[in-house]
Amino acid sequence: MGILSGKRGLIFGALDDRSLAWHVAERCMAEGASIVLTNTLVGIELGSIGCLAKERGIPLIACDATKLDELSSLFVRAQECLGGKIDFILHAVAQSMNMRRHKAYTGMNYHYYAQTLDISAMSLHKLLQVSMELDALSEGGSVVALSYIGSERYCAGYNDMGDAKALLESIACHFGAEYGMKKGVRVNIVSQSPTMTKAGSEWSDLDYWYRYTDKLSPLGNATADDCANVCVALFSDLMRSVTMQVIYNDGGFGRTILTPELAEAFSV
Amino acid sequence: MGILSGKRGLIFGALDDRSLAWHVAERCMAEGASIVLTNTLVGIELGSIGCLAKERGIPLIACDATKLDELSSLFVRAQECLGGKIDFILHAVAQSMNMRRHKAYTGMNYHYYAQTLDISAMSLHKLLQVSMELDALSEGGSVVALSYIGSERYCAGYNDMGDAKALLESIACHFGAEYGMKKGVRVNIVSQSPTMTKAGSEWSDLDYWYRYTDKLSPLGNATADDCANVCVALFSDLMRSVTMQVIYNDGGFGRTILTPELAEAFSV
Amino acid sequence: MGILSGKRGLIFGALDDRSLAWHVAERCMAEGASIVLTNTLVGIELGSIGCLAKERGIPLIACDATKLDELSSLFVRAQECLGGKIDFILHAVAQSMNMRRHKAYTGMNYHYYAQTLDISAMSLHKLLQVSMELDALSEGGSVVALSYIGSERYCAGYNDMGDAKALLESIACHFGAEYGMKKGVRVNIVSQSPTMTKAGSEWSDLDYWYRYTDKLSPLGNATADDCANVCVALFSDLMRSVTMQVIYNDGGFGRTILTPELAEAFSV
Amino acid sequence: MGILSGKRGLIFGALDDRSLAWHVAERCMAEGASIVLTNTLVGIELGSIGCLAKERGIPLIACDATKLDELSSLFVRAQECLGGKIDFILHAVAQSMNMRRHKAYTGMNYHYYAQTLDISAMSLHKLLQVSMELDALSEGGSVVALSYIGSERYCAGYNDMGDAKALLESIACHFGAEYGMKKGVRVNIVSQSPTMTKAGSEWSDLDYWYRYTDKLSPLGNATADDCANVCVALFSDLMRSVTMQVIYNDGGFGRTILTPELAEAFSV
Repeated sequence: MGILSGKRGLIFGALDDRSLAWHVAERCMAEGASIVLTNTLVGIELGSIGCLAKERGIPLIACDATKLDELSSLFVRAQECLGGKIDFILHAVAQSMNMRRHKAYTGMNYHYYAQTLDISAMSLHKLLQVSMELDALSEGGSVVALSYIGSERYCAGYNDMGDAKALLESIACHFGAEYGMKKGVRVNIVSQSPTMTKAGSEWSDLDYWYRYTDKLSPLGNATADDCANVCVALFSDLMRSVTMQVIYNDGGFGRTILTPELAEAFSV
Repeated sequence: MGILSGKRGLIFGALDDRSLAWHVAERCMAEGASIVLTNTLVGIELGSIGCLAKERGIPLIACDATKLDELSSLFVRAQECLGGKIDFILHAVAQSMNMRRHKAYTGMNYHYYAQTLDISAMSLHKLLQVSMELDALSEGGSVVALSYIGSERYCAGYNDMGDAKALLESIACHFGAEYGMKKGVRVNIVSQSPTMTKAGSEWSDLDYWYRYTDKLSPLGNATADDCANVCVALFSDLMRSVTMQVIYNDGGFGRTILTPELAEAFSV
Repeated sequence: MGILSGKRGLIFGALDDRSLAWHVAERCMAEGASIVLTNTLVGIELGSIGCLAKERGIPLIACDATKLDELSSLFVRAQECLGGKIDFILHAVAQSMNMRRHKAYTGMNYHYYAQTLDISAMSLHKLLQVSMELDALSEGGSVVALSYIGSERYCAGYNDMGDAKALLESIACHFGAEYGMKKGVRVNIVSQSPTMTKAGSEWSDLDYWYRYTDKLSPLGNATADDCANVCVALFSDLMRSVTMQVIYNDGGFGRTILTPELAEAFSV
Repeated sequence: MGILSGKRGLIFGALDDRSLAWHVAERCMAEGASIVLTNTLVGIELGSIGCLAKERGIPLIACDATKLDELSSLFVRAQECLGGKIDFILHAVAQSMNMRRHKAYTGMNYHYYAQTLDISAMSLHKLLQVSMELDALSEGGSVVALSYIGSERYCAGYNDMGDAKALLESIACHFGAEYGMKKGVRVNIVSQSPTMTKAGSEWSDLDYWYRYTDKLSPLGNATADDCANVCVALFSDLMRSVTMQVIYNDGGFGRTILTPELAEAFSV
């Protein structure tokens, strides 16, 4: 009997077995939840999530989370698959063409910028608005979106994803208030350490960055498993009054300026 | 000899004599700066800024701050008018069709939402990118954008402007880092108390809201003149190492949960 | 099999059955933990914790958490009672003689002030220092201290407890880094909604205040049970990389400026 | 005619000509203010502030800022020297015997800890309480205390000064609200980059630390002159509605995770 026993979840953004979303999905099932996975058609074709879902017998529904009609259809079908209203949602959706095409933040393509914001942030608003219209979430349901501290502080190379994550965190706060007042639904952010996923690896500096933040984090970088566990805690009934928050799952990185370990690495 | 003596400034967003941007413009001139005003053609037609500019002999250049070519042309002409590179910029540009058309935050029109973000936030990125390309700002120049604490906390009725201001503040941080490293340019936010301007009055609850926040602010709400003075301080050489910050010009509101005055009003 | 199964905990500050610390203790036991309770001799005599502990067969050890020798002895005996190193600690210790004697914050007695800081904040440093010296905590152990958002924002009537909680939160951050690097121990704050406990009731305005914050919280005030659940999550293995954080268990209060419900109450 | 013309100020904590407080004093005088300096007798004997004050004809009054009677006497005499109520105060007082005697943060001497808090933080409360009792500050007066971001984030080696600065910032917030409501007095913190002063040099790692933060600050470390200028802005009438704030005068350090320059230094 896991702590998500009987709960129904919808997981956006798993691409392959390194994805944070996949780790979350696995931990949720291990804790007793039933889940539905979703990603774009392109994501499903490019990644291995289709095989993973099939192997494990998890329903996988294609959906472009920037399209309202696809979201509506997703929420209807997910509830059918799960046999009732949805108890929790993970939003792990992010993409930046500026980053992928090596456009600098100060020389960006604004068409790509609008796309980055739409895919990585506005999609959270859209899925919440659609689920509210359809009344698809249970009373007291829990929504988590993944972010990174580069939303609040400048991080060389993080590009327009910094702005997208800031917008995402804002939406979590504002929609969280509305959904909380209406249905007791909680919306929170998990702000995660850099993690070696496929999406992360598009950021060319990740390897270097990963080692740097590891040294600056008193507990070291949080792993994908740590992230999954925090999401489980937030989806469970243990944190029913926590909403509109950013939970830093980062080994203390964000509250640290200098560790002896970094000092040593730097002074050599 | 004012503290902005010899400095050249570009002011976005003055509509009429109640506008924060107009207050800033007047105080900058009183402190010895030369300025150029800019607004959209529609803004110029609707407001009285055209007359004000003419009376005072201030150059006024029409520009849609969401259009890169208009921004380029603006920066070229503003430097001509001012006789050199620009030392400071005020961004006071914001518009929400969702708010104006009474679309609730949870039932918003996404075309309007994208417009709100473009006009109220991405315009800051665009003007900074264009000015960097044209090298239109002086070494150590100062950029200020106006915001409201509704960016960080839920405020019933503030609608998608909360998200737009969050994005705006993010851009100030991230572009501020880049421009700082490149040219010593500072980019800061002034987060202002609710103020009785024309833009503010579009928000139907402003009157009520204004009285509420006044009671919750140990110094009372900051006025438009207070806002202008803080902008002058930021444009001056007094704050040359302050960048990527949100300066709360709010009488202490944001650091206050309860005042005796509010307690009394509430308990009646 | 609860999620704290096999874990050993030490709970400071339970006075009677309304205490947050008592709620935490009960939930921890329900989740499978063994616990030891501790409070000052005076606290034990004044409250009903002695009877509660006896009824439930929980070891109760008297200790003044401001005294190093008493803390040393406590940690030795607690480990004996529990049969091994301690896995989690709750710090729920606070007292202000300035508040109790109705000394205003601007006319305070500095002897009382030093006591407030010593009892309510430095005691956390002392218990961590002693437990580190005795190596009394397990690798990856979890420490939680209770706070209130009045640490960061002015709240009329909260008096010197605001400063004490700010110091407490600082200690959690700084000692958390040190203990994290040394033994993987996590130290976090739970910043709780106003709660109707005996300690809370010393604050004469609590009743009024409670209703006010309830209206300003999208989910309403978090209850003592909610607090206990969040502590359980933090003590468990679900949040192993979360450290040096303030977790707001407040129904969204801290991220909210205005709700329709408050607007209505205020405008009447 | 400077922007502090006609204003009267009281400056705590200048020791020699490298002191931040001395830089502030000089800039205030250059902007037209009359000032009184104060430090402890020991500070006056150890430093060169006595000579500096004599050379420049500035009144210097010995006072231990932890002693209420000495503070009372100081405020009476300072008003006599200045010919009226005080318009601004700088608090630049800090000392840690734990740091000086190389006691680690996790093995600290609690007698020293209490002293650190009393000298470096509670002294701000005491001077504000005494000045309020004596009504020694002008309506709308301005108080600034100097801090460091090590108050909010762990910085190896900063020791108990991190806690002291956290307490100092809390006092600025809470007393700022009270004094603001009563007399319109503003109380703010300037959180300064590491600076090469005598006090700073007691921190053995400063030299290294200074270079590290310089690389992580988009504008580089803020200098003592920058600090003085920000204090002038806060003492002036330009920031009359800014209160209870922490103003980061740090070249953007606190809003930055990684710069290309640090990346390069680190990756070599």
